[in-house]
Amino acid sequence: MRLRKLGERELLAVIRRNFTVPRKDILLGIGDDAAVVKPGAGRLLITKDLLAEDYDFILPFQDPRLLGRKSLNVNISDIAAMGGHPLYAVLGLGLPRETVLDWVVDFFAGFKEAARKADVVLIGGDLSQARKVLISVTVIGRASGRVILRSGARPGDRIFVSGFLGDAKQGFLLYRKGLRLGVDPAKDFFLKAFLDPQPQTTLARELSGRRAASAMIDCSDGLSVDLNHVCEASGAGAEIDLAKVPLSPAMISFQKKPLPLALHGGEDYQLIFTVKLRDLPKIASLRRKYRLTDVGRITREKGIWTVDARARRKVLEIKGFEHFK
Amino acid sequence: MRLRKLGERELLAVIRRNFTVPRKDILLGIGDDAAVVKPGAGRLLITKDLLAEDYDFILPFQDPRLLGRKSLNVNISDIAAMGGHPLYAVLGLGLPRETVLDWVVDFFAGFKEAARKADVVLIGGDLSQARKVLISVTVIGRASGRVILRSGARPGDRIFVSGFLGDAKQGFLLYRKGLRLGVDPAKDFFLKAFLDPQPQTTLARELSGRRAASAMIDCSDGLSVDLNHVCEASGAGAEIDLAKVPLSPAMISFQKKPLPLALHGGEDYQLIFTVKLRDLPKIASLRRKYRLTDVGRITREKGIWTVDARARRKVLEIKGFEHFK
Repeated sequence: MRLRKLGERELLAVIRRNFTVPRKDILLGIGDDAAVVKPGAGRLLITKDLLAEDYDFILPFQDPRLLGRKSLNVNISDIAAMGGHPLYAVLGLGLPRETVLDWVVDFFAGFKEAARKADVVLIGGDLSQARKVLISVTVIGRASGRVILRSGARPGDRIFVSGFLGDAKQGFLLYRKGLRLGVDPAKDFFLKAFLDPQPQTTLARELSGRRAASAMIDCSDGLSVDLNHVCEASGAGAEIDLAKVPLSPAMISFQKKPLPLALHGGEDYQLIFTVKLRDLPKIASLRRKYRLTDVGRITREKGIWTVDARARRKVLEIKGFEHFK
Repeated sequence: MRLRKLGERELLAVIRRNFTVPRKDILLGIGDDAAVVKPGAGRLLITKDLLAEDYDFILPFQDPRLLGRKSLNVNISDIAAMGGHPLYAVLGLGLPRETVLDWVVDFFAGFKEAARKADVVLIGGDLSQARKVLISVTVIGRASGRVILRSGARPGDRIFVSGFLGDAKQGFLLYRKGLRLGVDPAKDFFLKAFLDPQPQTTLARELSGRRAASAMIDCSDGLSVDLNHVCEASGAGAEIDLAKVPLSPAMISFQKKPLPLALHGGEDYQLIFTVKLRDLPKIASLRRKYRLTDVGRITREKGIWTVDARARRKVLEIKGFEHFK
C-alpha cells in the first residue's frame, strides 16, 4: 500500500504502537502537541542530523532498514563524541505520496533496532509530504562527567582515531555506482561501512569516564576536515603521520591508493580524539580493545599537515564529505 | 550569491555570528557535535514540526522572512498548547544548491525575530543539500505548573477557542492562486493569517497558571480535526454550536460561505481548550482580553457534531489541513 491511500493518521497509529516504550523519565511520548520528559537535573546534549535523498542516499539503492538505523546512529555518534549518553529521539520525516508502506515499516524497524541498542526512545516527531525523502533526527542526551569539546586540544597532545578510516568512503564510491549489498561479498565490507556505521558509544563513555581525552569529534566528514574542526576550535594545528593512518586489511588489498580515502573520506563515524601526554596511561588498556591508533600530534603551527618519510605537506583544500550531486 | 559558491562552512559562520545569545542555561550553543544546556530539574516539553516546499509553502511566492518566523512559531505554538515555556530551538534546513544567499539571510532574520519575541535560543542544527527546501524545527521547552494534555476533556466541559477561525485557510486559498502580500490590501489580512501566524503563548500561560483548562490543543489542522484529536485522546465526543464559531469581520464581509473554512480550515494556531463548568470563573477575566468564544461542549457520545437552529449533524469526514499537491 502507498502512503497516499494510508494517510498520516493511520501511519501515526502504526508508529505509536511500535514506539511505546515504558521508561520512568518519559511522562508522555508520541501523541500530544509535545512529549513530556523528566531527564533529571544536569546538563543535556542536543544534536540534529539531516539525511536527504539524492545527497545522502539514493532511494532505489537503499535498504530502508539500514537507513533507519543510520539516521539515528549518526546522531548517537554526535552525542557519543561529546562523551554523553543518548536518551530521546525526535524524528521528522518528509515522504513522497508514492512511498510504499513497507518502506516506511522497514525504515522504522531499523530506527527501532538502533534505538534499542543505544537505549534511546523515540518520543515524537512530525510527518509531512515532500517531493523527496528527507529525514531529520534530533537526539537529546545526558552529559556525563566532563563534556568533551572540540576546543580542548593543545599543542603536544597526541591524536588518536578508533578503528579504520576510509572504508565508508570506499563503500560510498561503490554504492554510487549502483552496487548493492549481497551482490559481491568481497565488497560488502565497504558498503556496510557506509550504509550501516556503528557509533562508538562504548569507547566514548570509557574516554569520558577516565577524563582521558582533551578534545573529541566523530569522523563524519573525514579525518582532515574533522581534525581541522578540532584545530580551529582549539586555536592549533595538527600533523598526521601518513604511515600510521589505520587502514583495514580489506582496504589494503582492494584499493591501490587508500590514503586519500582514509584522510579525506568520511562517514566512518569513528572517534577522533586528542590526549595529553600525561594522560596517555589512561588509555593504555583501551588501545587494543578499540583498535586505537596514534596518528599524529597537535601543533602550535596552524593548518593540517601530513608527514611521511619523504615530505611534510600542508593539506591545502579542506572539504567536507563529497555527496551525490 | 548562491549557496553552491558560498559553501556550508561560510553559511554556518554567518548563522553562528547571528545566534550567539548569552544565556546562563546555555553552556554551549552552535558549533560542536551537540549543544550543551542546563535547563534545571523538572519536566521538559519536546516538539517538532516540518515545513516542506510545495506542500506547506510555494517557494517563488514565499517571503523567506515570514517563513523563518512561521517555522519557529508553529513549534512555539505546540509548546504553548501544553502550557509550557519554549527554551531552545534546533533547526534542520535542507536547501537546493541554487538557493540565493539573501534568501537564507532573510529566513534566518525571520527565525530570529520569532526567537527573540518568545525568548527562544537557536542552539544547533544541521544544513544539508536537498532538491527542495525542507525545514525541520525542534523546540524544547519547560513545563510549567500542570501540563495541559489532549486527554483531559470530560463530558460536560465547555469548548473554547481563542481569536477567529478560518482566516488562515482563506489566506491559503488566495496564496495558492499566487496572490502575494501587498498586492491587494483588502486580502492581506487573510494572507497574513496564513503566512505569519502568532502562537498564543500569553493566553496559554494564563490558562496554565490558573489551572483553568482540562485539555488543550493548538488549531493547526482545523477545529473539527483538532477537536477530534482531543476527543479521541479523552474518550469523548464534541458538539459545536455553528452560530458561535468565531468569524473575523473581514471573513464575514469577504466570504459567502465562511463556516466550512472556520470548521475544517487550519493553520490558525489559535488555542482550542476545554473548561470544566466549575472552572468557568477562572477564565472570566480572560474572555474579552483574548477574544475567547465558547463554541460548544464535550459529549459522552463519540464523534464531532455540529448544531444549528435547524439540525444536528455528525462531521463525517475528518481530514487534516489541505496542503498543496
